[in-house]
Amino acid sequence: MAETRLIALDWGTSSFRARRLDREGRVLDLRRTQDGILTVKEGRFEEKLRDNIGDWLDPAIPCIASGMITSRQGWVETPYVPCPASRAALAANVVQRRLADGVRIGFIPGVNISGGIHDVMRGEETQILGVMDEGLALHPGTHSKWALVEGGAIRHFATFMTGELFAVLLDHSILGRMVKGRDHDEAAFLRGVEAGARAAALGTLTHELFGARALSLADKLAPNAIASYISGILIGCEVASARNLLGLHDEAPLVFGAAALVDRYLAAFSALRRKAVRGPQDATVKGLIEIARLLTWL
Amino acid sequence: MAETRLIALDWGTSSFRARRLDREGRVLDLRRTQDGILTVKEGRFEEKLRDNIGDWLDPAIPCIASGMITSRQGWVETPYVPCPASRAALAANVVQRRLADGVRIGFIPGVNISGGIHDVMRGEETQILGVMDEGLALHPGTHSKWALVEGGAIRHFATFMTGELFAVLLDHSILGRMVKGRDHDEAAFLRGVEAGARAAALGTLTHELFGARALSLADKLAPNAIASYISGILIGCEVASARNLLGLHDEAPLVFGAAALVDRYLAAFSALRRKAVRGPQDATVKGLIEIARLLTWL
Repeated sequence: MAETRLIALDWGTSSFRARRLDREGRVLDLRRTQDGILTVKEGRFEEKLRDNIGDWLDPAIPCIASGMITSRQGWVETPYVPCPASRAALAANVVQRRLADGVRIGFIPGVNISGGIHDVMRGEETQILGVMDEGLALHPGTHSKWALVEGGAIRHFATFMTGELFAVLLDHSILGRMVKGRDHDEAAFLRGVEAGARAAALGTLTHELFGARALSLADKLAPNAIASYISGILIGCEVASARNLLGLHDEAPLVFGAAALVDRYLAAFSALRRKAVRGPQDATVKGLIEIARLLTWL
Repeated sequence: MAETRLIALDWGTSSFRARRLDREGRVLDLRRTQDGILTVKEGRFEEKLRDNIGDWLDPAIPCIASGMITSRQGWVETPYVPCPASRAALAANVVQRRLADGVRIGFIPGVNISGGIHDVMRGEETQILGVMDEGLALHPGTHSKWALVEGGAIRHFATFMTGELFAVLLDHSILGRMVKGRDHDEAAFLRGVEAGARAAALGTLTHELFGARALSLADKLAPNAIASYISGILIGCEVASARNLLGLHDEAPLVFGAAALVDRYLAAFSALRRKAVRGPQDATVKGLIEIARLLTWL
């Protein structure tokens, strides 16, 4: 049996993922649970870690962690590395802790931009630099990130609150009260993308969002299509406007994330006649391995 | 004592206002409570009306009502009058009801736009046409309305979900969790207005909203200034982008509403070097009187 040399932890707000890796970085075992940091009470992160992978822990095997576990709400708050942020800079700023039994854990820092523009990321940097040296990365989600990578470093990036805005509008606004069913409706989504592109061009996102209500009251949008329409507005507006912020032309981003969400973004790019490429699924573990190697932990 | 000739009802989602008027439209008495339509259980609107002004009701005195009381969630759902919507068109579409004791109530219709663009208003039309024959009206609030009035009719209008977005972001998003105190901070508000104008120009509102978090994490925005900053972003974006939708140039809107909210909008206009004028406080009652006169109820 191959020997475990590294434990790679991807510990986010709502999920926990741990992998045992051999010296070549091959995954020997994966454990995946819903034990995100929000489920941890009174800072008992070590207890939660042992609940999940206590049988894997060994003072001879380092653990390396990224994700919201490194945030103020997590176990160990790591600093932000400013852009341009290379793998070497991330590795140099890993915060190390030893548990009482000698187990060593490294927490990877986030990345920020300051000066005229302020922005932050935490977790995506590991994923992006795990697989990219050059190009444009798009990491959709609660706080969607667009990042320009040059010479193996994140040079510039921008966040869009797309996923979170979708969630709060559906769960708490008058738009959500009109929704009956959230199954994906591709036609409504694409209609939303068109409205979102209009919102990007005119700067009128909150007007287009209200349009979901007006269309519904006029029986021009079915109650079971409203959620997809709003998703289309928000994703369409993001895709259409991001290049205004990052000074892009026709760069095709590598789109990271869960398949269903990546599908939606690719459909929005296609509707707006722009190119995008599906990213790999194993970018996070690749990034954790890269940092561990720079630390000579693997 | 002057004789009551009309009861004017302004009955919205969260407030109830009734005025007794004489034949000249002078206000003889005002009752104002928090008995908005959301407080009415199982459709018992008549009971709520009698709780508030039962002693005023008389079969010889008509009541005229506007606001969300005329919506699907209200007492009597009135139709929408399409743009261009004149006072005469509103009056012709008033829906009349008689209570069992003979008291007559007229419910004023809303206004909509259909075709390429869909939008709706309900209540603001009465206020706007109460005092304007020509010009641009701005009715900020939960669903902020911009309306072009020509020849005594609402020709075109657009809604922005500014107030509701502010509320859901503060109450339910990660931005709200960083807020400590919501007192108005004028400097933070004006900084937000500048960010909102940038969002309008680039189509990147959800990026600027996330900026409130990034700035706060970088200690560039105090926890007690975040709410004002977000308010500034949303109002600034609305003010900067509305003319893109309505084909405006430098028209100065008449701004209706509560003094504190109008103050914020006027500050945003001023920061963006645009003109706006404070509207009158009694526009709703003037509008109700105009419609009642067209019905020969006054």
